Amino acid sequence: MTTDHALSSWNDGAAKSEIVDFVVRVTKQGGADFVPPAERIATFDNDGTLWSEQPLQVQVFFVIDRVKELAAKDPTIKQRQPFKALLEHDLETLYGLGKQAIFELAFTTHSGMTDEEFGEIAHRWLSTARHPRFGRLFKECIYRPQIELLDYLRLNGFKTYIVSGGGVDFMRAFAEEVYGIPREQVIGSSVKTRLDIKNKGVVLLKAGDLNSFDDREVKPQNIGLHIGRRPILAFGNSDGDLAMLRYTKTGVGARLALLVHHDDADREVAYDRDFRLSPLAEALDKAKEYGITVVSMRRDWKAIF
Amino acid sequence: MTTDHALSSWNDGAAKSEIVDFVVRVTKQGGADFVPPAERIATFDNDGTLWSEQPLQVQVFFVIDRVKELAAKDPTIKQRQPFKALLEHDLETLYGLGKQAIFELAFTTHSGMTDEEFGEIAHRWLSTARHPRFGRLFKECIYRPQIELLDYLRLNGFKTYIVSGGGVDFMRAFAEEVYGIPREQVIGSSVKTRLDIKNKGVVLLKAGDLNSFDDREVKPQNIGLHIGRRPILAFGNSDGDLAMLRYTKTGVGARLALLVHHDDADREVAYDRDFRLSPLAEALDKAKEYGITVVSMRRDWKAIF
Repeated sequence: MTTDHALSSWNDGAAKSEIVDFVVRVTKQGGADFVPPAERIATFDNDGTLWSEQPLQVQVFFVIDRVKELAAKDPTIKQRQPFKALLEHDLETLYGLGKQAIFELAFTTHSGMTDEEFGEIAHRWLSTARHPRFGRLFKECIYRPQIELLDYLRLNGFKTYIVSGGGVDFMRAFAEEVYGIPREQVIGSSVKTRLDIKNKGVVLLKAGDLNSFDDREVKPQNIGLHIGRRPILAFGNSDGDLAMLRYTKTGVGARLALLVHHDDADREVAYDRDFRLSPLAEALDKAKEYGITVVSMRRDWKAIF
Repeated sequence: MTTDHALSSWNDGAAKSEIVDFVVRVTKQGGADFVPPAERIATFDNDGTLWSEQPLQVQVFFVIDRVKELAAKDPTIKQRQPFKALLEHDLETLYGLGKQAIFELAFTTHSGMTDEEFGEIAHRWLSTARHPRFGRLFKECIYRPQIELLDYLRLNGFKTYIVSGGGVDFMRAFAEEVYGIPREQVIGSSVKTRLDIKNKGVVLLKAGDLNSFDDREVKPQNIGLHIGRRPILAFGNSDGDLAMLRYTKTGVGARLALLVHHDDADREVAYDRDFRLSPLAEALDKAKEYGITVVSMRRDWKAIF
């Protein structure tokens, strides 16, 4: 099963050829580059790689709505930073905080509930919340070429993982439905939990403090911890993915590392090194040297959503 | 696929009946207790549950051999505790240290190498190292009834995991071969790692300091982090597994929690509350109250290895 008609939203070109060529080589029984199915691990970043992350990561919109609920009970929240900036969609202030600080803020607004309760809240929100510019549900702002690629890889015996800076419990609320990636194949940022054996049986309570911010060098570390195999294919879109792409590429045998380049202002957004929350700069400058394939949204993708 | 002839090393009795009844109920399409395959998560402790842990956990024998290698280069090690106790199989001193301290000692002897290098060393050791009493390879000191149970669960759509206090990289060196459990379904104790991008491409170096000691309440926490689903079946053998068993049992719907009781001095070892490294006391006393099924090695298992 190595035909490429599954990739119908990809334009013919270098990127598609490299993907198909790679999959053909690693699945060819007896070939020099054959990789047994158990070792066919593919890791994908989420924000900006599988779905839109502009003007803010989807989880930040989720937190804005959570803070609105909190502010309805306690109006003083509206006057306090960084909640004020969140509620006013004050991008300049939010960008100034940086990605990790925004996500850590997000995590504090979820503390005190169980992971299971949080999952239900996130699932409900995702069933109605819409992207401010595209008008469609956030969970429909996923990239069709990537969905096809995930399916194509799985049809060829790959196990597909998300390895993202997003909160693991947030991503697990939609990854199976929209990407076909089961909860146990989602690796993300996480908070510490506390086992509560008094109420409601035994539950895991989400704490406000960080366990792991799954970005940059932490991505390969978490891959080692959770998967215990070096991926043979990795796909990202920012400098936060560079360590994972290089970890993937420098393994023994056939390897493929790819970057989405958001260069399509008409159909999505054009940005790279100036997106302060998640810049693409070093990875773009050194893609050739590191053997990373740059995928142009404009040239390589026939359709976006 | 819910027939039980697969469990031929289990004697007919309450434990086997409960297992078979549970599997029949959760796999019966349209039944009140039906569980979709994606949610059929089964978690097994390793030491004492899937293989022997007496007189010491297998990984401790591995460390003893590692320390012997180090002592060949630096003879002063033989005079220093706790290495002296390790080399002399001084169980009284080792038991006095406790399980976590012994494992942490183990982890320090592995620091500075990559996870991949460590895996090769452990794999080589396991291919020749033998149990001091049983005479067979350690990796043949696995319990046949449990291998049958793992197979039976997988045939019925379960995903089987190890959740153990043992080192995750050590267990990954044999879990696929002996239990049919792939590396990414092994959760264990872990050390911190450091990404090294200078030598040999990009590698993960094992550090000496602990990331997670996967015992007691940490087991459900790591299940939440790695799997993100509450198991519907869990199997342990000590108080270190009690939190995982209770977490499993107190989920909504059909659940099964089991404990191996080592009460077979003739065929293996008889021990419970007096094994200082990993006692079985509270879990045994409260098994009935918590709804945990106690499996008697002597009565319930037709064969051991």
